[in-house]
Amino acid sequence: MLIPDAEGRPAGRTTARVRYPETDRMGMAHHASYAVWFELGRTELLRDLGCPYGEIEDREGILFPVAELGATYRRPAVYDEEVRITTRLVSARGARVRFEYTVEREGSGVLLASGFTVHAAVGRDRRPRRLPAGLARSLGDAPRERA
Amino acid sequence: MLIPDAEGRPAGRTTARVRYPETDRMGMAHHASYAVWFELGRTELLRDLGCPYGEIEDREGILFPVAELGATYRRPAVYDEEVRITTRLVSARGARVRFEYTVEREGSGVLLASGFTVHAAVGRDRRPRRLPAGLARSLGDAPRERA
Amino acid sequence: MLIPDAEGRPAGRTTARVRYPETDRMGMAHHASYAVWFELGRTELLRDLGCPYGEIEDREGILFPVAELGATYRRPAVYDEEVRITTRLVSARGARVRFEYTVEREGSGVLLASGFTVHAAVGRDRRPRRLPAGLARSLGDAPRERA
Amino acid sequence: MLIPDAEGRPAGRTTARVRYPETDRMGMAHHASYAVWFELGRTELLRDLGCPYGEIEDREGILFPVAELGATYRRPAVYDEEVRITTRLVSARGARVRFEYTVEREGSGVLLASGFTVHAAVGRDRRPRRLPAGLARSLGDAPRERA
Repeated sequence: MLIPDAEGRPAGRTTARVRYPETDRMGMAHHASYAVWFELGRTELLRDLGCPYGEIEDREGILFPVAELGATYRRPAVYDEEVRITTRLVSARGARVRFEYTVEREGSGVLLASGFTVHAAVGRDRRPRRLPAGLARSLGDAPRERA
Repeated sequence: MLIPDAEGRPAGRTTARVRYPETDRMGMAHHASYAVWFELGRTELLRDLGCPYGEIEDREGILFPVAELGATYRRPAVYDEEVRITTRLVSARGARVRFEYTVEREGSGVLLASGFTVHAAVGRDRRPRRLPAGLARSLGDAPRERA
Repeated sequence: MLIPDAEGRPAGRTTARVRYPETDRMGMAHHASYAVWFELGRTELLRDLGCPYGEIEDREGILFPVAELGATYRRPAVYDEEVRITTRLVSARGARVRFEYTVEREGSGVLLASGFTVHAAVGRDRRPRRLPAGLARSLGDAPRERA
Repeated sequence: MLIPDAEGRPAGRTTARVRYPETDRMGMAHHASYAVWFELGRTELLRDLGCPYGEIEDREGILFPVAELGATYRRPAVYDEEVRITTRLVSARGARVRFEYTVEREGSGVLLASGFTVHAAVGRDRRPRRLPAGLARSLGDAPRERA
């Protein structure tokens, strides 16, 4: 679901339920699961923006490997609870794109974690590539020089 | 480590330690982790046989997608314990190969699980391919018609 | 979504999208991912039957570790495609329960994989336990002696 | 393997091979796999320091959930290659511990990624706890106020 961001930047929401194998013996979602949820968030945001990631890879031959990842964990997510992932496409500069995320308890909106990823657009030869036109367009007037 | 099998079939052993994210809230290794350990077992057996799986894929363009998987779980594997995976290449017929596995507690040898996988050799176009020559050779006098 | 089964056994349907980390270098969903999807299927079926699995664990102290797993893979599932998981609770005998699954391409209904799991109801002490009353009831007239 | 750190802080090394399910359709290790490798690194460092993590949890009832995670990715890790994880326990202050990691290509020593995690020592009730004595001791003269 595409939602307006206060500063006019593309943002979207999706939900996920904590899966059993995503939990660990501590009884809550393992911290690496959040990297997967962040990825679900940006997948759905790109789809909502009309640029499904699979098509970017398959049709345009552009990959977005993660160059940086950061996460801050506030509260544990427990088995089977529904979490709401909000994803913002906050900036793009040349071949780099930055997304920011929050993971909240669905319903109460309690913040569980926040984080970001920075991606470098590259071709299958791993050399830098320009952002796909559709994605660049959707960034519109977003503050493109902030990355 | 390549070990002789009573019936002269290729067999090998490797070990793995149960990783934290492989455990779940039940406090032991999640059942899907065993499919990953089985895969570690056949990866090391293929390497020991002189046919590293990565090379089969990259040089010969042959893939071995799993066509069947079966596992029986006896006892739980707990966090950080070392398990010993024994892998047997029990048969090959045309484009199909069958591996069998046991997962035991390293040290005591207590059986934790056993299982099998059947693989179909295919090309990148998903069409059946003959087994790589090196692998077929290493099967030697193994009972190739039993698959 | 709870759906009627031809033989009156509890059955349900849910969907999942193939996640990026569920794919492997072969370009399709890794075979261990199906064990996770089967688990999603039975989680949703148990919820639909009024016995959420988390509550069975937390309130009744009953765990359902997997005792057996079987899967047959027909066609690959690719990144970002939606799969439909149909789960049937086919039998229960004493402390053992058997579920059967199909994974189909959502939309076309093309069969991707099928499988089963057998679970043993145990307490936190790993000793056999009777099925939770709610679950036993929901099995109703299902052929309970077939497991 | 425990190695001396230039500043006298505890540091250790371990290796891991990139597993097939750790790769994704981009053909290299998925970025979330590095969080798992970091965890392998600190597990082995804690073991080398005489404080196996499982024992800290089981005997002392102290958990170390991840409070912060950061990673910078330089070069892809490919299927079946061996990576060397170097882990440093860089600081501890009250109930917080910070580890830093590098992941290099084994053999060549080419840097693939670096990162850090910050952990909060808590009891099973999620309330802050002091560091286990053994761990605090092993930090010795490390710059404990830098966290």
